Amino acid sequence: MSTKPLLLTLGDACGIGPEIIVRAFLEGAAGNCVVVGDVQVLRRAVRALDRTLVLARIEAPADLAAVPDGCLAVLQPDGLPNDLAALPWGRVHAHCGAAAACCIESAVRLVQGGQASAVVTAPLHKEALAAAGIDFPGHTEMLQEMAAPPGATAPPVRMMLANDELRVVLVSIHVALRRAVDLVSFESVLQTIRIAHTSSAAWGQRQPRIAVAGLNPHAGEAGLFGDEEIRFIAPAIAEARRLGIDVHGPFAPDTVFMRARHAPGHAGEFDLVVAMTHDHGLIPVKYLGVDQGVNVTLGLPFVRTSPDHGTAFDIAGTGQADASSLKAALRMARRLVDGAQVQAGAPAPIAAS
Amino acid sequence: MSTKPLLLTLGDACGIGPEIIVRAFLEGAAGNCVVVGDVQVLRRAVRALDRTLVLARIEAPADLAAVPDGCLAVLQPDGLPNDLAALPWGRVHAHCGAAAACCIESAVRLVQGGQASAVVTAPLHKEALAAAGIDFPGHTEMLQEMAAPPGATAPPVRMMLANDELRVVLVSIHVALRRAVDLVSFESVLQTIRIAHTSSAAWGQRQPRIAVAGLNPHAGEAGLFGDEEIRFIAPAIAEARRLGIDVHGPFAPDTVFMRARHAPGHAGEFDLVVAMTHDHGLIPVKYLGVDQGVNVTLGLPFVRTSPDHGTAFDIAGTGQADASSLKAALRMARRLVDGAQVQAGAPAPIAAS
Repeated sequence: MSTKPLLLTLGDACGIGPEIIVRAFLEGAAGNCVVVGDVQVLRRAVRALDRTLVLARIEAPADLAAVPDGCLAVLQPDGLPNDLAALPWGRVHAHCGAAAACCIESAVRLVQGGQASAVVTAPLHKEALAAAGIDFPGHTEMLQEMAAPPGATAPPVRMMLANDELRVVLVSIHVALRRAVDLVSFESVLQTIRIAHTSSAAWGQRQPRIAVAGLNPHAGEAGLFGDEEIRFIAPAIAEARRLGIDVHGPFAPDTVFMRARHAPGHAGEFDLVVAMTHDHGLIPVKYLGVDQGVNVTLGLPFVRTSPDHGTAFDIAGTGQADASSLKAALRMARRLVDGAQVQAGAPAPIAAS
Repeated sequence: MSTKPLLLTLGDACGIGPEIIVRAFLEGAAGNCVVVGDVQVLRRAVRALDRTLVLARIEAPADLAAVPDGCLAVLQPDGLPNDLAALPWGRVHAHCGAAAACCIESAVRLVQGGQASAVVTAPLHKEALAAAGIDFPGHTEMLQEMAAPPGATAPPVRMMLANDELRVVLVSIHVALRRAVDLVSFESVLQTIRIAHTSSAAWGQRQPRIAVAGLNPHAGEAGLFGDEEIRFIAPAIAEARRLGIDVHGPFAPDTVFMRARHAPGHAGEFDLVVAMTHDHGLIPVKYLGVDQGVNVTLGLPFVRTSPDHGTAFDIAGTGQADASSLKAALRMARRLVDGAQVQAGAPAPIAAS
C-alpha cells in the first residue's frame, strides 16, 4: 500500500550487517528499500559474497523510483569516516560505531520528515559505539532519544520480539536483573500493556489477547516468593481490563510462553505475552533459533524493526551469514506500515511473514 | 540391573497423582514399582479411569516379588487419614497434605534403609501441605531435609529439569527473584557446577560439557548491566575448570539454551546448562510442553525424580490427565539407578528415555 521506501541502515561496517543487506537484496527480499550506508562498505560485502551487484548512489529516498531494477539504492549520509571499507572485518572500531550512529540518525530524520515509511536496522556493536563516544545500551534506547522532538521527553517505548510462534513485549531491557526487579511497578506494567495493546492494531488485531507473565517463580505463589505480583502486576492488569484491554495474568513465567505458543497443532491461548525481564521474554523467543526472530520497537512515532541477532564478528566477511532474520524484519516492517495505514481488518495470523 | 523396587509416592490424593500412577501402571510403565499410598484413593482413581485393576496391599517393598503380574502393589503407611477417598477431587484439604507428606517420609525411610532403589514422587499441593502445618516450598526442600541424618545439616541439593532436548540445573529455586539475585555467589555457583558434574556420572557422562548461563541480560555486557558475572560467576567457572570440570561461560541467558538444545538436525553444544534462576532455567525446558519433562533432585543420597507438572486440580478425577511426564520420570529413575551402580560406560544420549 505505501509506496514510500523503507530505509535499511548499515549497522556496524565490520559486522555481518552489510553482507546480510546485500544477500537479502539479491534474494529479492529488499524491494522498495534504500540502504542508508556506505557505498564502499557495501561493495566489499558484495565481494565477500562472491557476487556482482550494481549499487546506485542516490540523494533522497524519492530517487529510488529512478533506480533500475536489480540495482541496490544507497543513500550515503554526509560525514561518514572514509576508511570504513579498509577496516578489518570482525573488529571493534570507533569509526564503525560513529558511522552506524550517523546512518541511524539520518534514517530517523528522513522517516520523521515523511520521506520514508519505516526504518529497518542492521546490527550494530555497542563497544564500537562506545569507542566513538556514543553511549547507548542498544538501538532501542538510541531510537527513543532520536525520536523525541528537540527539548521534549523521549516517548515511552517498548521492545517486542516476535517470531512465527510467539510475540513478547518487555517491561525493561538493558539493565541488571536486580534493577529490572526494581523497575516493575504499577505504572511500568500498565504502560507496557497499553503500548502492546495499541501497537497490535497495526498488525490487524484490535483486541489482542494479552498474557502477563509474573516476575517471581510461580508468579509469587500468592506472595510466598515475592510480592510484586500482588503489589504491582495484578493491579496493573485490573486497571488495563477496566480500560477495555483483553489482558490476563499474572501467570507463572515458566509455563505462560508454552501456553501462548502458536505452532502446528498447538493453538496459542494468547496473541502476545508481556514479560517483566529481558531474559524471561527472550529465552523462549530465541529457544528454537534466531533465524526468524524480529525485534520491533513499539511506541515510536514510526515503524522500526530489526533482526534478532548481533554483528556476529566471528563470521563477518566470510559470506556465511544468514539473512533470514533481516528478511523477516523487512516483512514485518512492511506489514506494520500497511497495518498502520489501514488500522482495521480481520485479525491477522501470528506469523511474521 | 537393580532388582530392588522403585517407590512411587501418591502425591495429593485429590489431584491427578493417583490417576496418572494407575494410568502409568496400566500402560506398562510402572514395572518393579511399589506405590506408597492409600489403597482406597487408588481404587477411586481406577474408577475415574473407568478401568479395572487389582490392587495388592503389601507390607514391605520386598513383598513385591510375590505380587502377581498385572496387580498394582501398594504399601500403605500407618497413620494416613481414613477419609481421603471421600474428599472432593481438585480441592485443597489438610488431610491430603498430611497424607502426601506421610507417604514421602515413608518412602525416604525405605530407600535410605536399603529396601528400595529410588523414589518417584507424584505431584503434591503446597497449600494442602501448609493446611496440614507442613511448611515447605516444594518437594525438593522437603526431601533435602528428610534426607539429612538426625541432627546433621541437610545435604546441598539442586533441582535439575530435563527433557529430550535439554538438561538444566538451577542455582536457586523457590525464592523471590530479588532473593535469587542475592543468592548468586561464588560458592553457590561453584557448588551447583560441582553437583551437576558429579551427578552426570550416573547417566554415563563422566565429563559432561556444562554451560553456565549468566544472571543479567547479555551476561552483564562486561559489567554494564550488572556485575555478578564478573564478581561471582566467572570466578566460579574458573575454579571449576581448575578442578578439571569441562565448564564454559557465563553465556547470555537468552541464547545459551538454544545453543545447548539437542534436537534432530541440531546437535547441542553442551550436555547441560546451569541457570541462575528458576525461570531462566524452566522457561526453555517447558517451552515445548511439559509432557516429557522430568524433575531430578541432584545431591540427595538416593535417586529421586518426579514429573514436571503439578496436581492439575482443574482436571483431577476426570480421567483426562496425561501420564507422559510421570512415565518419563520412571524411565529416568531407572536409568539413574543403573548408572549409579555402574558409574561407567560410554556417554549416553541426552534423551530421558
